[in-house]
Amino acid sequence: MNVKNWKDVPGVPMGKDVPGVTKRVLVGADDGAPVFAMRHFEIQPAATSPYHDHDWEHEVFVVAGEGELVGEDGSLPLKAGDAAYVAPGEKHCLRNSGAEVFSFLCVVPMRGEAPK
Amino acid sequence: MNVKNWKDVPGVPMGKDVPGVTKRVLVGADDGAPVFAMRHFEIQPAATSPYHDHDWEHEVFVVAGEGELVGEDGSLPLKAGDAAYVAPGEKHCLRNSGAEVFSFLCVVPMRGEAPK
Repeated sequence: MNVKNWKDVPGVPMGKDVPGVTKRVLVGADDGAPVFAMRHFEIQPAATSPYHDHDWEHEVFVVAGEGELVGEDGSLPLKAGDAAYVAPGEKHCLRNSGAEVFSFLCVVPMRGEAPK
Repeated sequence: MNVKNWKDVPGVPMGKDVPGVTKRVLVGADDGAPVFAMRHFEIQPAATSPYHDHDWEHEVFVVAGEGELVGEDGSLPLKAGDAAYVAPGEKHCLRNSGAEVFSFLCVVPMRGEAPK
């Protein structure tokens, strides 16, 4: 067993194609986790994750800030304490709709964290 | 996709054998989630989850309060923003070591939420 605070995990920028988004793997393959990975993301104001789909699910929990879960049928507001489910195959993105950093967990099956 | 705040999900007391512990399934089989389930727990001051083990992992994220992750080699303190990993087979419990409610997520493979 191990414990780490998300703020102590070095953040990794998602790259120039995804500006304003930083990722931290809180629990993953390096911890020996066999089935799923818990990641933490920070999205800066007005920034967004890519609009895309994949054949694995997301389970999201909002830590701080305000955002939106955008899908094909519109968007759902997100605030601290909200849990969101995105099914496999659903197009989606998460974007910051507020003035503060939008901070959330996104749990995925291990193949979604390290796609082969 | 769907969104729900943890406070809007009715809490289920864990029963008389586990006093002071309330559970909410935030994302689970009823949402169509195929691989893992995101649950939320509240543990009252001085209360604890059962000390036990099972052959699936826990991935924990502390939302509020202070607690301890207790294992065979001692205990690790837990506070808001901490992520904890408990491997399959490790004996463990989570207990509230503070004066406020200890509130955390515990993600498990689906068979850990609804053991057959």
